[in-house]
Amino acid sequence: MAYSQRVREILSWYPSDNPGTLTNIAKLLNTGTLAGTGKMVILPVDQGFEHGPARSFAPNPQGYDPDYHAQLAIESGCNAYAAPLGFMEAVAGKLAGEIPLILKVNNSDTLAKVDQPCSALTSSVKDAVRLGCTAIGYTIYPGSGARNTQYQMLSELIAQAKEYGLPSVVWAYPRGSGLSKAGETAVDIAAYAAQIAAQLGAHIIKVKPPTSHVEQPEAQKVFDKYSIPKGNLAECVRHVVQSAFNGKRIVIFSGGEAKDTQALLDDVRQIAKGGGMGSIMGRNAFQRPKAEALSLLKEVMNIFRS
Amino acid sequence: MAYSQRVREILSWYPSDNPGTLTNIAKLLNTGTLAGTGKMVILPVDQGFEHGPARSFAPNPQGYDPDYHAQLAIESGCNAYAAPLGFMEAVAGKLAGEIPLILKVNNSDTLAKVDQPCSALTSSVKDAVRLGCTAIGYTIYPGSGARNTQYQMLSELIAQAKEYGLPSVVWAYPRGSGLSKAGETAVDIAAYAAQIAAQLGAHIIKVKPPTSHVEQPEAQKVFDKYSIPKGNLAECVRHVVQSAFNGKRIVIFSGGEAKDTQALLDDVRQIAKGGGMGSIMGRNAFQRPKAEALSLLKEVMNIFRS
Amino acid sequence: MAYSQRVREILSWYPSDNPGTLTNIAKLLNTGTLAGTGKMVILPVDQGFEHGPARSFAPNPQGYDPDYHAQLAIESGCNAYAAPLGFMEAVAGKLAGEIPLILKVNNSDTLAKVDQPCSALTSSVKDAVRLGCTAIGYTIYPGSGARNTQYQMLSELIAQAKEYGLPSVVWAYPRGSGLSKAGETAVDIAAYAAQIAAQLGAHIIKVKPPTSHVEQPEAQKVFDKYSIPKGNLAECVRHVVQSAFNGKRIVIFSGGEAKDTQALLDDVRQIAKGGGMGSIMGRNAFQRPKAEALSLLKEVMNIFRS
Amino acid sequence: MAYSQRVREILSWYPSDNPGTLTNIAKLLNTGTLAGTGKMVILPVDQGFEHGPARSFAPNPQGYDPDYHAQLAIESGCNAYAAPLGFMEAVAGKLAGEIPLILKVNNSDTLAKVDQPCSALTSSVKDAVRLGCTAIGYTIYPGSGARNTQYQMLSELIAQAKEYGLPSVVWAYPRGSGLSKAGETAVDIAAYAAQIAAQLGAHIIKVKPPTSHVEQPEAQKVFDKYSIPKGNLAECVRHVVQSAFNGKRIVIFSGGEAKDTQALLDDVRQIAKGGGMGSIMGRNAFQRPKAEALSLLKEVMNIFRS
Amino acid sequence: MAYSQRVREILSWYPSDNPGTLTNIAKLLNTGTLAGTGKMVILPVDQGFEHGPARSFAPNPQGYDPDYHAQLAIESGCNAYAAPLGFMEAVAGKLAGEIPLILKVNNSDTLAKVDQPCSALTSSVKDAVRLGCTAIGYTIYPGSGARNTQYQMLSELIAQAKEYGLPSVVWAYPRGSGLSKAGETAVDIAAYAAQIAAQLGAHIIKVKPPTSHVEQPEAQKVFDKYSIPKGNLAECVRHVVQSAFNGKRIVIFSGGEAKDTQALLDDVRQIAKGGGMGSIMGRNAFQRPKAEALSLLKEVMNIFRS
Repeated sequence: MAYSQRVREILSWYPSDNPGTLTNIAKLLNTGTLAGTGKMVILPVDQGFEHGPARSFAPNPQGYDPDYHAQLAIESGCNAYAAPLGFMEAVAGKLAGEIPLILKVNNSDTLAKVDQPCSALTSSVKDAVRLGCTAIGYTIYPGSGARNTQYQMLSELIAQAKEYGLPSVVWAYPRGSGLSKAGETAVDIAAYAAQIAAQLGAHIIKVKPPTSHVEQPEAQKVFDKYSIPKGNLAECVRHVVQSAFNGKRIVIFSGGEAKDTQALLDDVRQIAKGGGMGSIMGRNAFQRPKAEALSLLKEVMNIFRS
Repeated sequence: MAYSQRVREILSWYPSDNPGTLTNIAKLLNTGTLAGTGKMVILPVDQGFEHGPARSFAPNPQGYDPDYHAQLAIESGCNAYAAPLGFMEAVAGKLAGEIPLILKVNNSDTLAKVDQPCSALTSSVKDAVRLGCTAIGYTIYPGSGARNTQYQMLSELIAQAKEYGLPSVVWAYPRGSGLSKAGETAVDIAAYAAQIAAQLGAHIIKVKPPTSHVEQPEAQKVFDKYSIPKGNLAECVRHVVQSAFNGKRIVIFSGGEAKDTQALLDDVRQIAKGGGMGSIMGRNAFQRPKAEALSLLKEVMNIFRS
Repeated sequence: MAYSQRVREILSWYPSDNPGTLTNIAKLLNTGTLAGTGKMVILPVDQGFEHGPARSFAPNPQGYDPDYHAQLAIESGCNAYAAPLGFMEAVAGKLAGEIPLILKVNNSDTLAKVDQPCSALTSSVKDAVRLGCTAIGYTIYPGSGARNTQYQMLSELIAQAKEYGLPSVVWAYPRGSGLSKAGETAVDIAAYAAQIAAQLGAHIIKVKPPTSHVEQPEAQKVFDKYSIPKGNLAECVRHVVQSAFNGKRIVIFSGGEAKDTQALLDDVRQIAKGGGMGSIMGRNAFQRPKAEALSLLKEVMNIFRS
Repeated sequence: MAYSQRVREILSWYPSDNPGTLTNIAKLLNTGTLAGTGKMVILPVDQGFEHGPARSFAPNPQGYDPDYHAQLAIESGCNAYAAPLGFMEAVAGKLAGEIPLILKVNNSDTLAKVDQPCSALTSSVKDAVRLGCTAIGYTIYPGSGARNTQYQMLSELIAQAKEYGLPSVVWAYPRGSGLSKAGETAVDIAAYAAQIAAQLGAHIIKVKPPTSHVEQPEAQKVFDKYSIPKGNLAECVRHVVQSAFNGKRIVIFSGGEAKDTQALLDDVRQIAKGGGMGSIMGRNAFQRPKAEALSLLKEVMNIFRS
Repeated sequence: MAYSQRVREILSWYPSDNPGTLTNIAKLLNTGTLAGTGKMVILPVDQGFEHGPARSFAPNPQGYDPDYHAQLAIESGCNAYAAPLGFMEAVAGKLAGEIPLILKVNNSDTLAKVDQPCSALTSSVKDAVRLGCTAIGYTIYPGSGARNTQYQMLSELIAQAKEYGLPSVVWAYPRGSGLSKAGETAVDIAAYAAQIAAQLGAHIIKVKPPTSHVEQPEAQKVFDKYSIPKGNLAECVRHVVQSAFNGKRIVIFSGGEAKDTQALLDDVRQIAKGGGMGSIMGRNAFQRPKAEALSLLKEVMNIFRS
């Protein structure tokens, strides 16, 4: 398959990566409905671990079954399917590469009270290789007092993944005693988190849609002095994308909490307008009946394609 | 031996495992009275470590002797015998494979006051291999502040065990400062624990019989909204089994505290009715005189077979 | 040398150990005055580290010299000599196997205030091999909040020692915030400690002489219900030995604090009567003048032989 | 290229280093406008990580782009360009050695509240080798309670870097509960930090411009008794350079907070006069428009050359 | 060179060491003015790290220069020169063995407030080998709550050093919450520290001159009961030497704080009289003008030789 101009351009942002890793970035970009556009929609299903099974799957009980999600991702034309080890084990041997898989190698649950937010390492790069995955995924919590542990672990995982030709997708979720609740999605913090993920070597960065709130007083001064636009979601997205190496890293956005279809699509339009390179859409997809989910994902992809 | 249809079906739930690991899962399923049924009864004896020798073995002093338990498991037609390193060392060389052995690689005692519940690693995958074991066993305490240590250690053990073709049995026991006492066996928490164990890569999951109590307010809303049945033990068991990949993981249940025979068998009937795939029965077996224990285990197996 | 019936029986308790490890267990059992009887008297000298030099050696200043102790162990007909690295380094190259050596690989001092009792690892299995030792020794403190660290470290040491054919001697000394002072030698706790050491894979277990005190309320109920005898030292010893796999592990007892000869010998007689398989006698031996020490050890051996 | 007398002299300060490491020290000294003079000006860009993207790059938005900084370093005639992993990945494959690169292997952000100041390890010596870098950079915080972790990690990194022929640049930034705010730049503390970095094996030491403040009472006595000059920046610099092995280690100075050009150049003149061997200039360079930055760096280099 | 009778005797104290390690112990004993006498004077210069540069070197500014100290050690006829990594790197390649070097592999500074006294590991055995050193040096703080970390690390270093034929010199400095200030140099504690260092496998033990103070009540009873002499420095030294395996380990003494020449020489005479096998003299040497230092060291050596 001849690569599109845009895919070639994106690959040029990673001049120091080995051919194996570039090949797998290209695979993510050249799969599904958005193949070749430089945009991505990914189906992630780690909510069973993060929020518990009933909260995640009772709205659409087909979701209890790991086979369901992989099929949903394939049928909807997603670029990739992301999940923790167990869900991957349950499908990888059957799929044998039918869709790119992103092994989410760390996870949190909501059962334990942990001092400083820090996900548990739940699988490894070698697991990803063994399961035929195309990339690994890892969550960092910038703002956590356990920052050093997470950054160092991610740094080692990224280096190891590269040796196997696997790119890394980083969930950059600001959280911890250093931040207010509003600060977790503040535009300055979202941009800072994207910067950190990029500096740590992430190939693809996943953030939440940023709000206009500015958390850090020092950042507020700069936003004021240089009149950085942040009046709507598109402008906030633009600042975040700019903060990821002037847009030279793939930045995608989550849909946030489950919401109604129009609100969701409005957000996606703003994200696309602001330069966001895609969406990662979990609960909003798999908690709907399958037909609705397929329809929604199609619309999302249409927005990014246009 | 030609495998039964049901065993073939169960093996199909693990499409990503290597032939060695599948072979040992099959060995567990094809041993003893319940061979080929897809059900399991396992004899575990770690109470000497967990509760002390007199509390465990004084009711039936034959139990002080490690030879007793292995013989009990064999004669009663159990699928496997599970124990810590010392008890295994005392019999493995004599048995040479007469019954599948599950090496319980971590253990707690009740002597120490530990901040966050976390068992000690007391043996290794290599010990299991050296002793000719068929699987490893590991306890996690979802809800513990030491969650990350436990999940990460389990993740490494599962990966290492697979390399040697050994499946992993996970004791998923919610416990810790994040949970009330009632919450430890609440239906939402038991289901969540089963989900976590499955996502961590457990092949076989062992939980306590769940109660109708719901611990987490967010889960309560979902149980209410979707009217998830939890009126009796069978219904609660069904939710737990569903939460383990829609029943595509082997989930077995403990007998809980030592109790009278009829109450125990009633529980087992509910577990079987709810889709539980077996029982793991320790104190209720080895603290009875041998003849009684053999009779009880026979009745339990009859329930699962019918 | 043809092995005695009793030695053969004892070796049969370790059916899973490799020939190298069995050979060294046999070496310990077939050395010195008690060779072939299945009983053991061991001279341990770690008090210089544990209590300081003056407190340990001023009563008999010959003891400042590492050469003294090894000679005392040889001349008295002990089965083995146990000491920390430094004392071993000072004699091993001269002895070249004249007496079995047990390298004590962890040690505590009384200078530091440590939160949770936990000895420092002060040497390794490889040191033991390099020095021609026959076994390693390790102290655990069941009841300590640092339990997990100790059990895990011991588990690794035992596995590594086996690879070199070295058996493991475990000093099981209950201690820590989970226990009262009286509880440290309570019969239930001593038995529990012996059980833990055995489950962790110890070949030889060293405990303090137990008292009739019962520490844990749950254990008290069981002692009452099943009328477990604990009226004198012999009965308490019998419960401890039974708790070590129904007597299928070698359990030996310390002499406790330095005391007068008759009291000491009375204790030894009770230990022998209760099924104790030997004594480990340090201060009571090396703090006496050499002639007295030789005489005392001879009497102790006579008790165990008869 | 024949090496200058001064470069040969500087290389003689490192008589124990292997030829590979000496070669890379020479490469740093023989690059750019100051090649051969024994002086250095380095462009470091880790502020995106340390202070956030907007605070760092909004004043001159070209700086969001990683390509900008490497080009600025090349065009201005700097000896080297220093940055974290992500920025390096974005340019190293394109540059292929066009300018010496210093991989900054640890980094802090200002989002988390961390008990004791300690940067996170964010990349490795192997990353530096893979990216064709000429040296590694590492920040220590003397005065931090996490000192031991940092010194030990640095010690390992320096040893590993040497094996690959990479010299080490150490950012010695006193900070932590052991120091007052003024103490962080006090002349005694800056000198102490330089001494520590040198003793840890740093080849090049980067400190902040020291003030005349003396932090430690014991040091104050010595400054008084021996009348150590510290009346102006040049004298303070001289003491710091002397404290780095009597000037036998390369010591360079940061420009501190962004300030106006004349104040900045005055500082540089004092640094040069006091024997400082160069400047490391980040925000003062890249936050200016490119033409201004080039002009400023040229003037700085002129000062050091004269 | 034929070894003297005394050197042969000292080597016989280490019967378990390999020829490489014995060769390097012999090298230390056969170097300098005291060659062959079994006595040692060592020049250690770690004060720049431990106390800061001005406090260490301002009294004699030649000391800022690493070349100065190595030359002082050579010209004065010392047995060895001890220093941290940086000072060693600065001279080892020039000296190429001109004097035995002892790499001090851990160090503390006085900038940080650390909970429990514990030096940072600042270099490694491999560094010592690479730099052509004859031994490694390591400081322990018996009495510190971080005791286990230090003892275990030392244990590993000693074992690793032996593999390369390097003996270990241990600075045994009692310190920590378990001890009063006076207790740090108390005769019982100094003796206990020497015993611990010896048991950990130290070949050469360095302690501070002990005082007549007795810190531990249990030790006081023993000192009283057995009338252990401690009336003057010589008697205290004798007890410490006896506590180091009855004098079968090389024990040397520091000069303590900088003091006037006669007081210092009086101390040395007492140390020699008490059986101390040498002095380790840092500040008292290098803070004097070179001529004075040479003269002082000559007198010290004369005392030990006579």
